[in-house]
Amino acid sequence: MAASAGPEIERLISLLAKLPGLGPRSARRAALALLKRREQLLVPLAASLAETAEKVVSCSVCGAPDTRDPCAICSDGSRDNGLICVVEEAGALWAMERSGAFRGKYHVLGGLLSALDGVGPEHLRIAELVGRVRHQNEGGGAVREVVLALPATVDGQTTAHYVAERISGPDVQVTSLARGVPVGGELDWLDDGTIVQAMRARRPA
Amino acid sequence: MAASAGPEIERLISLLAKLPGLGPRSARRAALALLKRREQLLVPLAASLAETAEKVVSCSVCGAPDTRDPCAICSDGSRDNGLICVVEEAGALWAMERSGAFRGKYHVLGGLLSALDGVGPEHLRIAELVGRVRHQNEGGGAVREVVLALPATVDGQTTAHYVAERISGPDVQVTSLARGVPVGGELDWLDDGTIVQAMRARRPA
Repeated sequence: MAASAGPEIERLISLLAKLPGLGPRSARRAALALLKRREQLLVPLAASLAETAEKVVSCSVCGAPDTRDPCAICSDGSRDNGLICVVEEAGALWAMERSGAFRGKYHVLGGLLSALDGVGPEHLRIAELVGRVRHQNEGGGAVREVVLALPATVDGQTTAHYVAERISGPDVQVTSLARGVPVGGELDWLDDGTIVQAMRARRPA
Repeated sequence: MAASAGPEIERLISLLAKLPGLGPRSARRAALALLKRREQLLVPLAASLAETAEKVVSCSVCGAPDTRDPCAICSDGSRDNGLICVVEEAGALWAMERSGAFRGKYHVLGGLLSALDGVGPEHLRIAELVGRVRHQNEGGGAVREVVLALPATVDGQTTAHYVAERISGPDVQVTSLARGVPVGGELDWLDDGTIVQAMRARRPA
């Protein structure tokens, strides 16, 4: 990097470059945009990050980030307590919420099992999920169904199998999101695996 | 956006989405990465932005961002004061410094003339450049050459023509960066305009 940019700007650029989606080049562009729009962007973003660092915590029940604990979803009495959707990260939870397709509770694992990356069950919030299901089923407000909404990747499916084994029992049904052709998906552009699964799971029209 | 993410996180995402290179989707991924790496990324980035907002100013001579005024380059006595390189933004200045190809001073215009976007000469630091050249040429330490290092786009070339007209005189030579095939550039992948310019400016091998 140019020494001329000064250590403060260099440091800002190297931190921005750690964000997913930004490389060294786009981090420089982002730093430049921040410097150009000091009052509209730089100052508000600094304040917003500081506020987030100060106020946002992980929900002790589901693991999702929120300013209160338990989080807004876990403390929402209108949502079905007997239905838990298991997701990898909060990003998947937000996507699910945007879809409006689910009115139960969530459980954020915080990652996926991965032999390659050395991520074992002890690194994820799996024991918390098992404990949560057991606790609810002993104390009333039983969990009827756990929906595994994990990615359709090798690690995602390994994790799904592991979680299913740990929590399945006579009282709890474990399900997974359906596989198939996505809305707007043209067959030409779909991978073979998706087509095979969509064919296997075909339904009367 | 999901109401469940909370207003602080929503605000952070919408601010991140204003950075060049980040859209709404990648801003969410970035926010998630920040929340996951609180101590390594979120807190340092908040501090770095606050420090930048507090300490970095625009150099009153050249317009580049730095923590001191005049900036490190403008106050560097070992650099040629008679040579000024005109750039659109600090990003171009940093690129030029990384190349090590230039040992004069800079002048940051802060943009390009654009009829479409309503950017006129009064919005750019052109009057400052004219005044700077005149002042130096009256007071000693004359400016011998102004190198226009502006983008090879319509707006860049319009701006270059305008600046050249404003500052050219008997004592000041105005030049532009050479056009041609970039290093590593394969002819197959170059646009016709570049090939035409490279052919016109061909030199003995």
